[in-house]
Amino acid sequence: MAKIKNSANGTKKETILEEAARLFYEKGFSATSMRDLAEQLGVEAASLYNHIHSKSEILKGICFRVAEAFMTRMEQVEMNNETALKKIEGLIRFHVQQMIHEYEYVHVSDGEWKHLAEPYLTEYQAQRRSYRKRFAALIEEGIRENQVKDIDPPTAVLIMLHAVGGIESWHRSKRKITAEQLEENMVTILVQGLCRNDQIK
Amino acid sequence: MAKIKNSANGTKKETILEEAARLFYEKGFSATSMRDLAEQLGVEAASLYNHIHSKSEILKGICFRVAEAFMTRMEQVEMNNETALKKIEGLIRFHVQQMIHEYEYVHVSDGEWKHLAEPYLTEYQAQRRSYRKRFAALIEEGIRENQVKDIDPPTAVLIMLHAVGGIESWHRSKRKITAEQLEENMVTILVQGLCRNDQIK
Repeated sequence: MAKIKNSANGTKKETILEEAARLFYEKGFSATSMRDLAEQLGVEAASLYNHIHSKSEILKGICFRVAEAFMTRMEQVEMNNETALKKIEGLIRFHVQQMIHEYEYVHVSDGEWKHLAEPYLTEYQAQRRSYRKRFAALIEEGIRENQVKDIDPPTAVLIMLHAVGGIESWHRSKRKITAEQLEENMVTILVQGLCRNDQIK
Repeated sequence: MAKIKNSANGTKKETILEEAARLFYEKGFSATSMRDLAEQLGVEAASLYNHIHSKSEILKGICFRVAEAFMTRMEQVEMNNETALKKIEGLIRFHVQQMIHEYEYVHVSDGEWKHLAEPYLTEYQAQRRSYRKRFAALIEEGIRENQVKDIDPPTAVLIMLHAVGGIESWHRSKRKITAEQLEENMVTILVQGLCRNDQIK
């Protein structure tokens, strides 16, 4: 029987997460068994357990990898010296890119995090809340800077985050615009939708 | 044992659909049994079967009720004499209102339609596709009328439809803005996001 291959960044655990994200995306977390995963990897279930102890541990790996990527980007964005509107644009571009290139990870973490075991469930929810609050704070900053319309910041955040979720349909669509065009369309509609009319260049 | 009550519009079937939409929303279609539904209605399962033959028939009722509401509104919007941008605004307002006031129906039909039995599955998918195409055609009309930015219409449709899906978080949010404020915020961001900058009044 084959061995688990090392992933591009060199770890077997990474290979397992990648394959698991694909399976969870296709079948759902609940309907996927460790046996399914072993089969997909072409190894014995016992060999899988040398690297990972449970399905729940895999889900934790996927969810926190995604959360960490977004939190890291949020920190970078908050620290740069651009206007609030540019910061918001940067975040939207990052969301779009993650939805395009890390789609299975993002989709699984967004849809399946409720299956996380404690204490990870609580920690993950706290990170989600924190991320949304910081996003809303950037929108508030934009309103104070007279760049962004006088809208409700949490509502704007939910519009932004759900709108990029629509990239799910893009993945399934046959007649596709390019990833770059998709990103530009998203920015055009969403960032200019936020922007005060007298601020559009 | 109690009898199934007539709904506001007078039918027992309507009462069953309403209660089922609530249950499917809370537990998911697959996890809800006819027994759960009978219990919720406070009647014997046998009495339920006098009015409805299967869970699948209930789902069909829910999905096509929602589809019909949107298709009817689409027809009204297409026939009125307003500009394309006003038509788009009308549709977005309708989506927001449906997401606020008919939330369980919309959520269940959006999330569970894959469980429809044939030929309803095929018919429902055809209606969804048709609705999105007609929505995209209105955006194209707006581009031709020089009101809407030169964006990809199907991408704009997916942004709009997913953005209003964000109202799910609004329902669960503790610190809520009013339904009217939510609608105005959605229109401000989404319609002005589409609108050409030289067209904003």
